[in-house]
Amino acid sequence: MVNSKPNYITIAHVGIMDMSSVSLGMNKNHYSNAGIKTNGTFSVNIPSVKMVKETDYCGLFSGKVKNKTVLFKTFFGKLKTAPMIEECPVNMECELIKTVDFPTHDVFVGKVAATYCDECVLTDGEVDFGKVQPILFVMNDRSYYKLGEKFSKAWDVGKELR
Amino acid sequence: MVNSKPNYITIAHVGIMDMSSVSLGMNKNHYSNAGIKTNGTFSVNIPSVKMVKETDYCGLFSGKVKNKTVLFKTFFGKLKTAPMIEECPVNMECELIKTVDFPTHDVFVGKVAATYCDECVLTDGEVDFGKVQPILFVMNDRSYYKLGEKFSKAWDVGKELR
Repeated sequence: MVNSKPNYITIAHVGIMDMSSVSLGMNKNHYSNAGIKTNGTFSVNIPSVKMVKETDYCGLFSGKVKNKTVLFKTFFGKLKTAPMIEECPVNMECELIKTVDFPTHDVFVGKVAATYCDECVLTDGEVDFGKVQPILFVMNDRSYYKLGEKFSKAWDVGKELR
Repeated sequence: MVNSKPNYITIAHVGIMDMSSVSLGMNKNHYSNAGIKTNGTFSVNIPSVKMVKETDYCGLFSGKVKNKTVLFKTFFGKLKTAPMIEECPVNMECELIKTVDFPTHDVFVGKVAATYCDECVLTDGEVDFGKVQPILFVMNDRSYYKLGEKFSKAWDVGKELR
């Protein structure tokens, strides 16, 4: 929420800190940073490949000049001030727990308060990324990639080298 | 380097902070944390799908009980104390610039000092992730996925919605 209006931004510089918190590395010039500081909340919304135009648009144009509220159906969760996107198959609302200062970037660290998913992307009650069809971003060739096939079991295939 | 020996660990909790720095979220129990603190350096080594057994092995077994040096050909770069993996198509050596404390995790933030790549993964002088064939990890179903097809241009396809 920036100036009492939902705003959405495409972020490449993301991270996982530990089992319950995530980070967003955001250039200090961005319109959204003030909203995160004011509310102490933000959301992480994972778009699917069919939302690539809207996702790219949110990275091309700033909330200073475009009203990005109109792109999506917005909903709120228990934190009340972190708008989320109904069309996204996975949405996480986060409480800001740390801000780490970098020369040109604010790194916002949020603890995930709740996750909201479309039932269509669940398999046995867990989010199935094969069904989410997330957009993967590569900076080098400025391209979006799809997730490929599942090819091996983690914490398992390496036992063969024991 | 831990106790003067190269050690390798598979990390799921990674992040990008800004244009030049990356993070590793590492449980405080891990054997490698002391080495990063002592040397003030670490490396990030991106394995390809054909290295999935070695990669999984490095996540299954601790350096406390297994000598993981023998799995790879090690090389050093300009920082001298951050061992890297010859078999990995992309290796980054990093200088530790911040450690952010979380209840169970040390989050180590490193500034990339140099990147070393196999020439086979370059296209027009840039790392081409289609050629790298990185291993993508999904925690939910404990699986490794391949990178899929490139399907759209970033900072471009969204202009259609203008």
